[in-house]
Amino acid sequence: MSENACPYCEQNSGTVLWAEQRCRVIHIADTPFSGLCRVVWSSHVREFTDLGDADRSHLMRVVAAVERGLRDVLVPDKMNLASLGTAVPHLHWHVIPRWADDSHYPEPVWAAAQRKGVVRALPTDFAAQMKGRLEAALG
Amino acid sequence: MSENACPYCEQNSGTVLWAEQRCRVIHIADTPFSGLCRVVWSSHVREFTDLGDADRSHLMRVVAAVERGLRDVLVPDKMNLASLGTAVPHLHWHVIPRWADDSHYPEPVWAAAQRKGVVRALPTDFAAQMKGRLEAALG
Repeated sequence: MSENACPYCEQNSGTVLWAEQRCRVIHIADTPFSGLCRVVWSSHVREFTDLGDADRSHLMRVVAAVERGLRDVLVPDKMNLASLGTAVPHLHWHVIPRWADDSHYPEPVWAAAQRKGVVRALPTDFAAQMKGRLEAALG
Repeated sequence: MSENACPYCEQNSGTVLWAEQRCRVIHIADTPFSGLCRVVWSSHVREFTDLGDADRSHLMRVVAAVERGLRDVLVPDKMNLASLGTAVPHLHWHVIPRWADDSHYPEPVWAAAQRKGVVRALPTDFAAQMKGRLEAALG
């Protein structure tokens, strides 16, 4: 996939909750997995280990801040983290809150659905709460 | 799940490629995804962000060493990383080499199969190669 055709290079998906030069945190609204966020590396890097040590540490600090924020704001039953990029090979992390009554629990969100599932309504100030927490954790 | 019933507390799955007090790296042989490794945190911790900063950094240094080792030894088309733990809530990372002709590519390994897929034979000295690389990277 060329950089020109890459949706994560285009920077037009999701609601930006936090951003700086190296990466950004976006919230994806159009999913049954309420609160699903992605941490997207800014440059078109393919693999986690294509980053140097300092960049990898920075990226995981951001991923951890998103997980911590989602746990604090939404109190899910479990968190899922994944960097796959098989379909879109531009380094990004999925940070996914899970509940025991969601459509796929306890299977991964990419597996077959287990039931219709409850789609949780987010707090009306979800984005503001997450922005505040990410700013506090990451500056 | 109690610690007593936890397969990752029992420490009897997979071939151990590297281990120290805090975590271990195991290779899972009985999977169509050749080379699949897991990094298992030793204590029965549920979430990535239940670890402190130093432990999280250490764990991801090990995950990165496993990804780097698998890339060097097997030269896959893509790497996948995931910490899900929805079925087994004991902190562990999947480190999965992927090839364009594997059964699920470009979908995640937990999704529906796309084809019968090629199962790659590993080098006969795969475990020895990985042990050497992990020892060199991690001590």
